Amino acid sequence: MTTTLKEFLESCHTLKTLRLIVTSSAAVLEARGRVEKLFYATLPKGRYANMHTEGFEFHLNMDAIKQVKFETGEAKRGNFTTYAIRFLDGKNEPALSLFLQWGKPGEYEPGQVEAWMDLKEKYGEVWQPLPLEDGEIGG
Amino acid sequence: MTTTLKEFLESCHTLKTLRLIVTSSAAVLEARGRVEKLFYATLPKGRYANMHTEGFEFHLNMDAIKQVKFETGEAKRGNFTTYAIRFLDGKNEPALSLFLQWGKPGEYEPGQVEAWMDLKEKYGEVWQPLPLEDGEIGG
Repeated sequence: MTTTLKEFLESCHTLKTLRLIVTSSAAVLEARGRVEKLFYATLPKGRYANMHTEGFEFHLNMDAIKQVKFETGEAKRGNFTTYAIRFLDGKNEPALSLFLQWGKPGEYEPGQVEAWMDLKEKYGEVWQPLPLEDGEIGG
Repeated sequence: MTTTLKEFLESCHTLKTLRLIVTSSAAVLEARGRVEKLFYATLPKGRYANMHTEGFEFHLNMDAIKQVKFETGEAKRGNFTTYAIRFLDGKNEPALSLFLQWGKPGEYEPGQVEAWMDLKEKYGEVWQPLPLEDGEIGG
């Protein structure tokens, strides 16, 4: 499956409530929300997908993401599986991670894990987004 | 004024509602909230200050922050002043930024700008936190 990151991000609303995680050299910020109502902007650094909600804002330089990886893991606390999507930069480091968000540990919303599985099936465990074309985000 | 980052972070509740910003190589996440009810943990990477709220989580490796800088700026949209605190890593890059959060542009909560000014006066525009002592965060 080859597609752009923009198209992929627009299918992420099916994942319902997520934990969005961005990590710098010394800090980690994690916000709870859905990926939906994205809007786009072309900035000198690249073409961005953006989201504004009451509680958080999110900006992703789509041109800087070279790989997307589906990853399951073991929760640090509690005996359950985590489901993540990692957006990797040119150094193969996660610039953004999306984790399916549970209520209580191990309790996902109905259909949430299935939507993650469907996306993984469609795109593959690791895939490279197609570059955006000029004018694709209209800005 | 010489103090530890832990002590400084514990005085940040006076700033009221903030915008916490963490930036990776390709993504920016901004969450709205107060810095309060911090708790601490010693991890292999360093000694962390942590915060959990309903909408977001925040983790800061205090050992990795080498300088703290008070910074005013001009808002991108609207003609008003922004008030920020930058937590700089060993490469002088902001690992975390705290911005005073406004309601409408330029409208801060009463006392918020004054609290920022007071902290700047007390610590200086740029200052180096004292290293935490062993056992200081008790973990």
